[in-house]
Amino acid sequence: MASPTTKLADTASVDEASVQPFPNSQKIYVEGSRADIQVPMREITLTPTTIAGSDSENPEDGQRFEDNPPVRVYDTSGPYTDPAADIDVRKGLKPTARQQWVIERDDTVELPNESSLFTQERLIDPETAHLRFDHLRKPRKAIAGKNVTQMHYARQGIITPEMEYIAIRENMALVQAKEQGQKFGQPGFQHKGMDFGASIQDEITPEFVRSEVARGRAVIPANINHPEVEPMIIGRNFLVKINGNIGNSALGSSIEEEVAKLTWGIRWGADTMMDLSTGKNIHETREWIIRNSPVPVGTVPIYQALEKVNGVAEDLTWEIFRDTLIEQAEQGVDYFTIHAGVLLRYVPLTANRITGIVSRGGSIMAKWCLAHHEENFLYTHFDEICEIMKAYDVTFSLGDGLRPGSIADANDEAQFGELKTLGELTKVAWKHDVQCFIEGPGHVPMHMIKENMEQQLEHCDEAPFYTLGPLTTDIAPGYDHITSGIGAAMIAWYGCAMLCYVTPKEHLGLPNKDDVKEGTITYKIAAHAADLAKGHPGAQLRDNALSKARFEFRWEDQFNLGLDPDTARSYHDETLPKESGKVAHFCSMCGPKFCSMKISQDVRDYAREHGYEVAGETIKILDLDAEMKQKSAEFKDQGSEIYHKA
Amino acid sequence: MASPTTKLADTASVDEASVQPFPNSQKIYVEGSRADIQVPMREITLTPTTIAGSDSENPEDGQRFEDNPPVRVYDTSGPYTDPAADIDVRKGLKPTARQQWVIERDDTVELPNESSLFTQERLIDPETAHLRFDHLRKPRKAIAGKNVTQMHYARQGIITPEMEYIAIRENMALVQAKEQGQKFGQPGFQHKGMDFGASIQDEITPEFVRSEVARGRAVIPANINHPEVEPMIIGRNFLVKINGNIGNSALGSSIEEEVAKLTWGIRWGADTMMDLSTGKNIHETREWIIRNSPVPVGTVPIYQALEKVNGVAEDLTWEIFRDTLIEQAEQGVDYFTIHAGVLLRYVPLTANRITGIVSRGGSIMAKWCLAHHEENFLYTHFDEICEIMKAYDVTFSLGDGLRPGSIADANDEAQFGELKTLGELTKVAWKHDVQCFIEGPGHVPMHMIKENMEQQLEHCDEAPFYTLGPLTTDIAPGYDHITSGIGAAMIAWYGCAMLCYVTPKEHLGLPNKDDVKEGTITYKIAAHAADLAKGHPGAQLRDNALSKARFEFRWEDQFNLGLDPDTARSYHDETLPKESGKVAHFCSMCGPKFCSMKISQDVRDYAREHGYEVAGETIKILDLDAEMKQKSAEFKDQGSEIYHKA
Repeated sequence: MASPTTKLADTASVDEASVQPFPNSQKIYVEGSRADIQVPMREITLTPTTIAGSDSENPEDGQRFEDNPPVRVYDTSGPYTDPAADIDVRKGLKPTARQQWVIERDDTVELPNESSLFTQERLIDPETAHLRFDHLRKPRKAIAGKNVTQMHYARQGIITPEMEYIAIRENMALVQAKEQGQKFGQPGFQHKGMDFGASIQDEITPEFVRSEVARGRAVIPANINHPEVEPMIIGRNFLVKINGNIGNSALGSSIEEEVAKLTWGIRWGADTMMDLSTGKNIHETREWIIRNSPVPVGTVPIYQALEKVNGVAEDLTWEIFRDTLIEQAEQGVDYFTIHAGVLLRYVPLTANRITGIVSRGGSIMAKWCLAHHEENFLYTHFDEICEIMKAYDVTFSLGDGLRPGSIADANDEAQFGELKTLGELTKVAWKHDVQCFIEGPGHVPMHMIKENMEQQLEHCDEAPFYTLGPLTTDIAPGYDHITSGIGAAMIAWYGCAMLCYVTPKEHLGLPNKDDVKEGTITYKIAAHAADLAKGHPGAQLRDNALSKARFEFRWEDQFNLGLDPDTARSYHDETLPKESGKVAHFCSMCGPKFCSMKISQDVRDYAREHGYEVAGETIKILDLDAEMKQKSAEFKDQGSEIYHKA
Repeated sequence: MASPTTKLADTASVDEASVQPFPNSQKIYVEGSRADIQVPMREITLTPTTIAGSDSENPEDGQRFEDNPPVRVYDTSGPYTDPAADIDVRKGLKPTARQQWVIERDDTVELPNESSLFTQERLIDPETAHLRFDHLRKPRKAIAGKNVTQMHYARQGIITPEMEYIAIRENMALVQAKEQGQKFGQPGFQHKGMDFGASIQDEITPEFVRSEVARGRAVIPANINHPEVEPMIIGRNFLVKINGNIGNSALGSSIEEEVAKLTWGIRWGADTMMDLSTGKNIHETREWIIRNSPVPVGTVPIYQALEKVNGVAEDLTWEIFRDTLIEQAEQGVDYFTIHAGVLLRYVPLTANRITGIVSRGGSIMAKWCLAHHEENFLYTHFDEICEIMKAYDVTFSLGDGLRPGSIADANDEAQFGELKTLGELTKVAWKHDVQCFIEGPGHVPMHMIKENMEQQLEHCDEAPFYTLGPLTTDIAPGYDHITSGIGAAMIAWYGCAMLCYVTPKEHLGLPNKDDVKEGTITYKIAAHAADLAKGHPGAQLRDNALSKARFEFRWEDQFNLGLDPDTARSYHDETLPKESGKVAHFCSMCGPKFCSMKISQDVRDYAREHGYEVAGETIKILDLDAEMKQKSAEFKDQGSEIYHKA
């Protein structure tokens, strides 16, 4: 039975809004040690600073211009923002060079047929033919006995091209900062009491990437069957990442809409995307998403397994789940949320909570455990799951099925009990050289957030943490991107490696495109605020460039350096819409005579012209006292107007 | 010359949206020890919880209902949300009983004429007659030699009716929590290393209010000429407060719009409002705002003083400023931002900043200091300013004229130099028994926020701190309510007493009504998140009530308990619009079969029915193991459907 709501338009063209290049920006590719390592970045071109001439009567005499170097920013948007790319969502993205890297390693084979029975049936099902992706590739799998995870390579001492690619990507801001001679408050990662590794004080090298992956402190989610992916890393010694959720439900949205949400979400900065679809056509929806995704895609396989047993949790079996894992691994899912920590003995601990169990996967497994009075089959079969993961390099996202759903339930025994079990499972995954990160809450008041990070680091031996918010209060439905953005920024500062976004529709409905954008940008703010607070090398470069543009009234540069140039520009234009407003040395808040930025520039010019200097720590004001009295008289004589029109 | 943009519609009626009562809410008044102490609150009525009958075949047999007690919330909206109030913005609000309290104290007189020369001229100026407020009262002033500040009374050991009113207002959440037998994680204020005073562990008493005001740790901004005000308190042992900014500029907005923004801002939770108007008709705009404001109104008098010298900072004089203070004090302004800490020697410290001086008041004074090469006249005349303040009970908001305007400039020598001077001035104000709080930044990365609070507490001897955000990154123009909401929540947790809101238009343009709402709600979130984290008595009551409603699918209650019922309802209705959706035991995110809340309720019901108990710390699961096996069989026999439709 095809779900009545799943549909595909006749022309599934990519959403136009997602393929517009950003203003004054170009896509560039930085080459690595081999020509096929091409790391994408967005380079924002800035306008020069205008410096007025010294003749205050005719400031345009002797006026000169000082260039502002372009700013390169981390770019998750994939080929969609590259005008040279040929985009056709029906064909999917072209594989990157990574396809070749996988083949070169000579430890995988292309299978003649899909291994999953469900997939095999599905491929010949006439009812879903109209939804099927046209350009299916045959899946690859590790040769028997081989382990193809990035962690496995890392532990052999191998620096893969993926690792070098990531080092270039992560190092970008620092390289620019060095080129520009910028110094920031913090020389490197500064968070107290954390072992960040010495080498990254200066730069992020391919070897550092390798060592962090080998240690389990970072993961590179990159299934061998997702050759479209642009490699990225999740770990607390790297830039904080954010995840966006998409996915249709039984009540709404089509495949096409989901692909549009994907391209829209990565445009605004989503580093990974989870497909949380439910309903009958999960398989097809996922295929479309993966084939069009340059970012890692995560799923919660139990959702689809539940569909296969018609929504009756008690009917779930290991066999059905296993086939689902293989089905999804061969499609190219990069990480799986597995709720293997929801143990039977923890379930009753939730009975007195205000909001019980709020994780879908957690509640499904809880129901299964209670119904069978048996231990969670994801836990009892965990070694077998690891065997599947390592044959495709799927990364574990160990699900927090018992995360709190309200402030009242935060940090309770059920939550931390499960966390300890997740720590135990982390070690099992690592025994298999399978990459692994850990999911976290949820709803936590500010003063209880740090404990979450500390407990996670302790129990899970520094495996990356990936949290949903947390929401810092429950009283603002409709604004939970904000209630959670506060908690997200804080926990990322404390060391959380990836933040799962929350949209304004959380608790209320399915996000539309506007919500996806709002949630993504809110989380990009949280992640970047944390990068600054952690002292990530070079993170402040963009802030400084934007602040300088703001101070110099380079309005267009200010917009273009922001996370959302479109919104900034439109807000500005609401009150000062004329083109001239954007070069005006004031804005609509205070008007031309009343602008603090303008007055402050006067002060700066004045101080400089009159010999005030700030040299190191010593302020020379005392020496200048006498001179100042005289200058003061001169200043008034000249009409006290020191502002030089540019 | 009347500014061309200042206008007043023929019928300056109050904005309709601001006078709608909130859904399922009523205005109540709690009486104090005397009948004229009537403290307004909003009481939200909730629907009962439906508990299904025990017969799983016919769950409606034996179905019963459990009442949910109403929730009272702090209400800043004033008489506008009271259907019994007679609202006419042309007449202004009726004075509260506070007018009588002032008169009773017998230390003030009604003046025959306004003391300010400017006011006297303005009242007979035919050009502004059309803008003039119709129902002007004669100002009151302290009898010569008397000090009429709340701090002065407090230090005499007097508990004023204002203090009792505030105690009732602040104590409300705790009273309810006690009535409902709710226990929260924290017995009282918990923030480490802070002296919160012992008495508030249990409740906030009038005597505690008095002692905090006497100590200078809290202020009650309530000018004797603002009898419309509903008393409130700012101090870190009380609920965190938020301020909204309104005010027209030379480039836009009318008096009527500003009054509409006022009533709109307080509807959504603004505890005080600052009128930051510039332009020629500041005097009239302010009169309209104060006469219609039930919350304290703050201003930055230097803005108007600058208008009086045609925008030429160097022409400012103490005499003009002094007359402006008196003019505004007699209109009823409750607190003045005074940039008396911008000392000549600090100004050059800003020259090498990326963004110089970003405070309007700060830059005006810096320009004045440099032009004259004299010390800031606000500093040199500070004792005289105190004399004015105490004759009307205007509270100081000591302005941070040198606050950082970018991440790069945070916590620098200029900023902390000024802060030390503000600390010195605090002690001068206290010597006069004048109430005083301190303004703070601005733009500060997360890891540098705490130092701001610590330095402020140290230098200013625990006078309340009032910060603008701080913004935790500079890269998101258009989203600075969020970049700053993160910092605001954190600094409030650390002890900041009031947060100045930031709207999405910050740095870009003047906020419209939507922006005022968005900024206000974002800051209400930050303030409440901090109240939770500080362990404010009873703050969690509303979170718990909302979470319980959420878990029980009482959708309407969830909306109505939220900070913005309208938005929550409309978001919900976008994807599940039918009325039935709001009683459905699922929502559009997951659909009926897939809802974790629903499954979790099944788990809870099941656990309870089958004898799982959570008694104190001991979980009885071990005793139940054998029984469980049997129950498991029964459960499957019964069709494994334990969810009882309500």
